[in-house]
Amino acid sequence: MKNLYFTPGPAELYPTFYQHLQTAMDEQLGSISHRSQRFRDIYKFTDEQLRILLNIPQTHGIFFTGSASEVWERMLFNCVEHESFHLVNGSFSRKFYDYANSLHKFAHILEKPFGEGFDSADVEIPEYAEVVCLTHNETSSGVQMRTTDMHKLKRKYPKKLFCVDTVSSAPYPDLDFGLIDSAFFSVQKAFGMPAGLGVWIAGKSCLEKAERLQRYESMTIGAHHTLPTLWKHYKTYETPATPNVLYIYILGKIAEDFNKIGIDTIRKQTEEKAKMLYKFLDDSGDYSPFVKEERHRSQTVVVADTKSSSADVIAAVKKAGLIIGSGYGSLKESQIRIANFPAVTVEQVATLIQELKK
Amino acid sequence: MKNLYFTPGPAELYPTFYQHLQTAMDEQLGSISHRSQRFRDIYKFTDEQLRILLNIPQTHGIFFTGSASEVWERMLFNCVEHESFHLVNGSFSRKFYDYANSLHKFAHILEKPFGEGFDSADVEIPEYAEVVCLTHNETSSGVQMRTTDMHKLKRKYPKKLFCVDTVSSAPYPDLDFGLIDSAFFSVQKAFGMPAGLGVWIAGKSCLEKAERLQRYESMTIGAHHTLPTLWKHYKTYETPATPNVLYIYILGKIAEDFNKIGIDTIRKQTEEKAKMLYKFLDDSGDYSPFVKEERHRSQTVVVADTKSSSADVIAAVKKAGLIIGSGYGSLKESQIRIANFPAVTVEQVATLIQELKK
Repeated sequence: MKNLYFTPGPAELYPTFYQHLQTAMDEQLGSISHRSQRFRDIYKFTDEQLRILLNIPQTHGIFFTGSASEVWERMLFNCVEHESFHLVNGSFSRKFYDYANSLHKFAHILEKPFGEGFDSADVEIPEYAEVVCLTHNETSSGVQMRTTDMHKLKRKYPKKLFCVDTVSSAPYPDLDFGLIDSAFFSVQKAFGMPAGLGVWIAGKSCLEKAERLQRYESMTIGAHHTLPTLWKHYKTYETPATPNVLYIYILGKIAEDFNKIGIDTIRKQTEEKAKMLYKFLDDSGDYSPFVKEERHRSQTVVVADTKSSSADVIAAVKKAGLIIGSGYGSLKESQIRIANFPAVTVEQVATLIQELKK
Repeated sequence: MKNLYFTPGPAELYPTFYQHLQTAMDEQLGSISHRSQRFRDIYKFTDEQLRILLNIPQTHGIFFTGSASEVWERMLFNCVEHESFHLVNGSFSRKFYDYANSLHKFAHILEKPFGEGFDSADVEIPEYAEVVCLTHNETSSGVQMRTTDMHKLKRKYPKKLFCVDTVSSAPYPDLDFGLIDSAFFSVQKAFGMPAGLGVWIAGKSCLEKAERLQRYESMTIGAHHTLPTLWKHYKTYETPATPNVLYIYILGKIAEDFNKIGIDTIRKQTEEKAKMLYKFLDDSGDYSPFVKEERHRSQTVVVADTKSSSADVIAAVKKAGLIIGSGYGSLKESQIRIANFPAVTVEQVATLIQELKK
């Protein structure tokens, strides 16, 4: 009897994953050359499906990395000459900020306590900040920033490059790539795949910045997976280094499955399931939603304070084959985290709620 | 009917790959947390099996990246303050050198023509070079550098850090990690897995250098996958970012399969198959070995000049379900490349030779 994973990544595999994996094995995609027409067709297909799903215009390229964490580094390397700006309210938004410091960028920070979120009205961006680093969904605390707030901010600061971490929420956030210069995610969250592939969406504005830094400012923008190199190969649907061909194929097929359902339906289902979870937590005497402001509550990673030890709760539902996450870091013992990704259905969320009630 | 891939990576999957993948799926390893005991056990197992296979001492750590190309960058970032030194005789050794230039290191180069190899006597290492970058197997030209020459060089220059690219040859080369500070490979070559995982072996000498650069020289050594961060997490068999858990598991199982056969046997089988291929090429009127010096002929990637168009040869053997590689770059039309990895047997090599004869 298999477990059902409600963990915030790695997470439950999307139900169609297995059949796509089988097809890939039958077609020996693990052995094909990444310089073959077969690979270029795969990249092109995945690119097309992601464009439909996330409404990505032709101004933006879609690139593959080893992980989303790698993209933190690539974005800062390629697009920040001196200064970046970070909204930080949890462990992952902080890591983006830490990466900037490690690269010796001058990193500005606007911080909020764990569990609180940002509205556009809170934010003043420093004059010389070149890239604004936002986290759509803070996986550690279950806080989201609404895309409308991101878009408002960009309209107020149109000359700055906006980069959005959508690791644990894509394809849920309806980003307007007419405004957002870059976004990225990894496949082991809402796309329901094993970990090992990061996806980086970046616009021509980012490419131009990288080229300027390299050519005119004589800066190093790194050596591996630089944006100019990625883009050059992308023109013929290739990659500079051997990529994870198998996962790129499966990602395209799962994106196609999502497109068959329709992104609007997936977003509505996500909101419906999130509503069920938050309603249960609000009404329960044993749990309460960690994030107090409703507009900041994540739709994809629901975090709850537990009255009893969270380890007991996790162990209890595990008996029913349901795996949920513990709190992050120092809140490990007093919180649970429940992923609400497309791989789990309304019925399965209802089952989880029944078990949590026991 | 499945094809049999003699391509130099991605290559034929190792026969046990499929059963390990099935086990991983049955155990839902695509969904487990990378902060769980189950993952730590997997990392530990893979670490142990690779240590046995490659005779890696406790002075060295084993780390995972997105690809071997990523390791070029990490090695240079973490271990070169000012100057690196590169032996270049093909496209991949050149890329290592190019990466150093991209990172604004002062990169010394000793170059030989495509198809020629290095002996220790050829090499004088510049006084201030900190890291010596060697390529055991130049995948583009089919040239190898003997490990005895590498060891000799290190003995002559004991204070310099030696880093060996074994991408398309590991586990064949019998490196002495009492001398060699770092080596790396990717899994889509001789380990017979799909691409998407790099393996970086690095000694304490490398870690100490990285820490010194970071602390005392106030240099940036990058942000993602820095050696101090990798090593810190490695102590408890964890990784800084979410790794490719599935591939780490399968790599450990294939390394275990190799260990059951025994590394000596695998090396002998490799040499036996290489001998068959080179003998055929030497005797043939239609083909000739591209690498003239026998001691420089790669045991794992055999490159041949073809009398007729290589495209015709490739198409002809493909009819028998055998896939071989074209020449690299400008030699695409006049050469073929044949991978000789553990996934293909003596009998299969014999079959390929029969087809090439036709």
